[in-house]
Parts: sequence; C-alpha cells; structure tokens
Amino acid sequence: MSVSGTLRLLTAEGDGLRFEARIAERPIVMDGGRENADASPVQLLLATIAACEAMDVISILRKQRQVVTAYEVRMSGERAKEHPRRYVAIELVHRVTGRGVERGAVEEALRLSVEKYCSVHHCLRPDLPITNRIEILEG
Amino acid sequence: MSVSGTLRLLTAEGDGLRFEARIAERPIVMDGGRENADASPVQLLLATIAACEAMDVISILRKQRQVVTAYEVRMSGERAKEHPRRYVAIELVHRVTGRGVERGAVEEALRLSVEKYCSVHHCLRPDLPITNRIEILEG
Repeated sequence: MSVSGTLRLLTAEGDGLRFEARIAERPIVMDGGRENADASPVQLLLATIAACEAMDVISILRKQRQVVTAYEVRMSGERAKEHPRRYVAIELVHRVTGRGVERGAVEEALRLSVEKYCSVHHCLRPDLPITNRIEILEG
Repeated sequence: MSVSGTLRLLTAEGDGLRFEARIAERPIVMDGGRENADASPVQLLLATIAACEAMDVISILRKQRQVVTAYEVRMSGERAKEHPRRYVAIELVHRVTGRGVERGAVEEALRLSVEKYCSVHHCLRPDLPITNRIEILEG
C-alpha cells in the first residue's frame, strides 16, 4: 500500500519560500517564510496528528451509534529552542459535541486510535509526549 | 516556542470525513473518506517531511549563492498492511534545476537538513527509513 505525490517550489523571492504539494486531487500550499499566510511544514505536522486521531475517534463513535454533532480539536505543540526545533510536547484537546455522548466511549475510541489505528501517531518518535484531553458538550 | 491551532469537523456524511485545520491564516482541509479530493492526514504527513527538507535545502543553497530556478520532490511512501498502517519506508527524489548547481552543495545541504535542521524529520521514529535521492538539471 503506497502513497505518492509531488512537491514543487512556487516562489522563492525575498523571505518567501512556498511549496505546493500534489498528493490528492486538491493541492496544498506550505510556506516556510516568516510572515506566512500558509502553514509551515511543522505547523501542518501538528494538524495531521490531530486529524488522524479525530478521524479514528469519529469513525469508532459512529460504529457505536454515538450521536456526534460537532468535533473540534484545540492543538498546541511546544518546540525545542535549539535546532532541530522539533516538538518536545504536544497537547490535543478533543471537544466532542453531541446528544448524550458517553465519556467512556470517547475515551475508549481515543485509546484505540493511539494504540492501534492512528497511522500518523505511529510514525512519530516514541519519546514525544502527546497528551490527549476530552471535553464533552451537549448539543 | 509554541505552535497552536484548531481542527474542526466540516462534514461527516456517508463515507465523508472532512476536517479543517486553522493553524496559519489560510485553512487546510483534510479528508479521511475513501474518494478524497483533499489529502488525508497520512498523505499530508509525507508532504510535510518533503517540504521541511526542501525548505532547508533551498535556504542553505541560497546562502551558498547556488542559482536554483526550480525545485521538485517526488515523494513516495510505503505503508504497513496491518494497523497501524504507518509508513515503513519513504523515498524522496529531490530534482534541483539551476545554473551550474554543484551536486556536492546539494548533498551537503540535504545532509545538514536531515542531521541538524529539519524539525519534522526529527519528530519521526528513528527506525523509519527515509531515502533521499538527488537529481540535478541545468536550466
């Protein structure tokens, strides 16, 4: 099972450093410049971790007939001060809104994602601490 | 030094599972469905690795007054067949087009990225093999 695509330099003027990734139908732009409107690779990495987990959780909750009406993840990552400025800690706050959603079901779905399903999570170094928190709202 | 943002469920109908990440000014959409126009998190992970390296390489080559006119990375990743279907091998082919670009300079820039600068690379598990190849074109 393989994934493939192309990354192409768009602009490299002044501080700007924009690349376009074609890896699905719609292209994605990343920007390594200082005042970037587009996400940088390391910003986007945080979003891929959160989205991978969230997609697993939603899929598992659906199978359990939990009624989820909204799902939001607040993501934050702390980076090392010295090169390579990798993440040293990540926190993801999963805010699940629904009708009578059971906390235990969300906790179990998240546990399954982290331990078994999340492909992005399992590409990361094992000593990178990722803290997942859950908030449940009725609505 | 911290990174933060929000991920929000857009649609969860049928097979569709689209999330929007707000982590820079322009939002990014990811799709976990089967026939996805937008990249999935694991596809996007591959693009963040390639873009992180490519941005380092371009920045280093600039400082060395190498004249790069185009830069493309062909990305491919092999995923495990069983859950978690993480990457088990990644290949990145860096195609650098320029005027008299020296192969040694590109090799050195890539080595510095991988060993010292690339924040995304250093978030990955050390046993994930990433093969970098270089092609240099005149133009």
